[in-house]
Amino acid sequence: MPALSPLAPARFPDLPPLAGVKLATAHCGIRYQGRRDLMVAVLDPGTTVAGVLTRSLMPGAPVDWCRACLKRGKARAIVVNSGNSNVFTGRAGRAVVEETAKTMARLVGSNPREVYVASTGVIGDPPPADKIIGALAPTAGAASPAGWAEAAQAIMTTDTFAKGATRRAEIDGVAVTINGFAKGSGMIAPDMATMLAFVFTDAALPAKVLQALLSAANERSFNSITVDGDTSTSDTVLLCATGQAKHRRVARAGDARLRSFRRALDEVMVDLAQQIVRDGEGAEKFVTIAVTGAATARAARRVGLAVGNSPLVKTALAAGDANWGRIVMAVGKAGEKAERDKLAITVGGVRIAEKGGPVPGYDEAPVAKHMAGREVHIALDLGVGKGRATIWTCDLTHRYIDINGSYRS
Amino acid sequence: MPALSPLAPARFPDLPPLAGVKLATAHCGIRYQGRRDLMVAVLDPGTTVAGVLTRSLMPGAPVDWCRACLKRGKARAIVVNSGNSNVFTGRAGRAVVEETAKTMARLVGSNPREVYVASTGVIGDPPPADKIIGALAPTAGAASPAGWAEAAQAIMTTDTFAKGATRRAEIDGVAVTINGFAKGSGMIAPDMATMLAFVFTDAALPAKVLQALLSAANERSFNSITVDGDTSTSDTVLLCATGQAKHRRVARAGDARLRSFRRALDEVMVDLAQQIVRDGEGAEKFVTIAVTGAATARAARRVGLAVGNSPLVKTALAAGDANWGRIVMAVGKAGEKAERDKLAITVGGVRIAEKGGPVPGYDEAPVAKHMAGREVHIALDLGVGKGRATIWTCDLTHRYIDINGSYRS
Repeated sequence: MPALSPLAPARFPDLPPLAGVKLATAHCGIRYQGRRDLMVAVLDPGTTVAGVLTRSLMPGAPVDWCRACLKRGKARAIVVNSGNSNVFTGRAGRAVVEETAKTMARLVGSNPREVYVASTGVIGDPPPADKIIGALAPTAGAASPAGWAEAAQAIMTTDTFAKGATRRAEIDGVAVTINGFAKGSGMIAPDMATMLAFVFTDAALPAKVLQALLSAANERSFNSITVDGDTSTSDTVLLCATGQAKHRRVARAGDARLRSFRRALDEVMVDLAQQIVRDGEGAEKFVTIAVTGAATARAARRVGLAVGNSPLVKTALAAGDANWGRIVMAVGKAGEKAERDKLAITVGGVRIAEKGGPVPGYDEAPVAKHMAGREVHIALDLGVGKGRATIWTCDLTHRYIDINGSYRS
Repeated sequence: MPALSPLAPARFPDLPPLAGVKLATAHCGIRYQGRRDLMVAVLDPGTTVAGVLTRSLMPGAPVDWCRACLKRGKARAIVVNSGNSNVFTGRAGRAVVEETAKTMARLVGSNPREVYVASTGVIGDPPPADKIIGALAPTAGAASPAGWAEAAQAIMTTDTFAKGATRRAEIDGVAVTINGFAKGSGMIAPDMATMLAFVFTDAALPAKVLQALLSAANERSFNSITVDGDTSTSDTVLLCATGQAKHRRVARAGDARLRSFRRALDEVMVDLAQQIVRDGEGAEKFVTIAVTGAATARAARRVGLAVGNSPLVKTALAAGDANWGRIVMAVGKAGEKAERDKLAITVGGVRIAEKGGPVPGYDEAPVAKHMAGREVHIALDLGVGKGRATIWTCDLTHRYIDINGSYRS
């Protein structure tokens, strides 16, 4: 086990039971010894689902499967294994997914296309079908409304802590709950570092509404974090609504009665996304990059990601060096509208560069002190529009190279 | 001084004198102690010039200056300083460039717009104008047809060796020479790691023809290398033709009489570009990525760069790990046409993956041996078209982090 990230939260939050969701985990020995590597979520009939899947053109077999399933908008189970990603595994890999879905569908009495599958781990070896499929019946049989922490643990790979979040909201005066858990420590990264997140609510929302809410929240959460800029072949975010809360029908994502729910969903997803960054491979610092004054929100996000992905910015962060020249460089290469003489850079609340040059006589001492801490805040104002976005990332340290240089061996 | 790169060539090549070019260097104490930091090239009247400059939207003052000068297509001098990049330096920085050009123009009897300026080093402090301008007269006065190695040394920053290349060619039966030198060790990287290259020939070619030849050769050389994917604010490549070779007039870049010259120019630029990769910050391995079967040559280059820039591929390379799953991941994220079941991956001549999965029974031993060496060859066939490109890169090692984490302090 790798050492706990220095940025880890104090503890796993208390996730309350959520009507319509039962969870179970098992050890099938896919790759890890003495550690649970299978998670099953059993969902009551009537559960709707939305999803966001990797944009990679080399997706894993489970991603192809989920993409097809999402057209139905219904979910009765989710099966996730860690230790093997089932990516680039050809026909054998597809067969494992189909068998998994069929077996689980029989167990819960559903169509196989209502069983979602996700896998995370090494690329290129088909997962051991017998071990996974043989474990499904006993595991599903043991599913219970508790066990959120165990579920979050079972999907971990190189993660150093389990990631969960919960919020309460209300829809039309009726209380609803949102629970979520996630894994990932190379964000957007392959092999064991794939990002997976599963979010559940007892709200009663049609799949189309769920999808709109999920896609919007995803932009502000999982699409706004980066550890190394690499895109996994397996990234999967699912949002399931069991519909057991007794609020009145809501038919549109833009309905004002969803305001509280939207905010809570955003909070759960941002919380989970930030935890992934806090578990970024080798991370020693949690870095917030707030971009304002961009031409559009999309431009702001792209500029923030260019800064957050730059190896030179990230190595300077690791060294606690307020090397704002590298930030200028990264803004310059982002390809979005920017003007040298309008860019302003603020670190830890201290303006250090503006109007095409360093702020005359700026005091580096408070900035150096800020940079030496665990949490670094960088604000960039491009001065060319009203677009804004916030990106979260971590520094690039020797441990990143240790983890990724020795991973397969 | 950092330790010599393990990938360095045995020695600096012998660059012959080139009619119409005189060189000199000096120590002005811009940043480095006991090391030359100013290079002046004096060019005979009639010299034509072409250039390729950074696409960064935050260019340094010298880049703005060169861009304006290139419209005239004539060059009488090049002034390069190391230790300070004159980037994000506002009005003071622009004044230094203008003063440098005016002073040098008086010394050689030209228009200031025929004096090219390049600077490399730290960002954000205007360079010391007095030191540079005061050194111009004695330095230009000492210029001589020899001194290519010293010129290549004077423009170095974090480079661990000086980079030069020379080739002979013929135009219309008349022998011509091409000499070039370059600096850079974070390719496309800011601060001291900017990429600069200066190439000279005695061929007699109009600026328009030179520009076409340079732009084409640049795609296959400097635009086909990457160390860390970061784009410098100062990247500059200049090609100067003194016109002193006595061949007949050539008016078009496509003229068949330029075949030998084009090939030699390509060779000089690829040689220099590869030397920059061999001096990549922290590099332990020189990696060739040959992409075939892409939709277009541009698509092939983008796929090759996605692989060459992936931190996960680069850390696996550093560890000598033939982790082809990460290559699949990088191809998938490149955004160019690719089909999982058509991709074939060959490392060190051994086919390891094809048809959507690993090659059955492939022997990892020869691949592991190949990966343990200094030179790694990866071939990717996308199987979707006829586009091809070759990219050169290096691995991502602990030394990269050491170099970039401690650079300013």
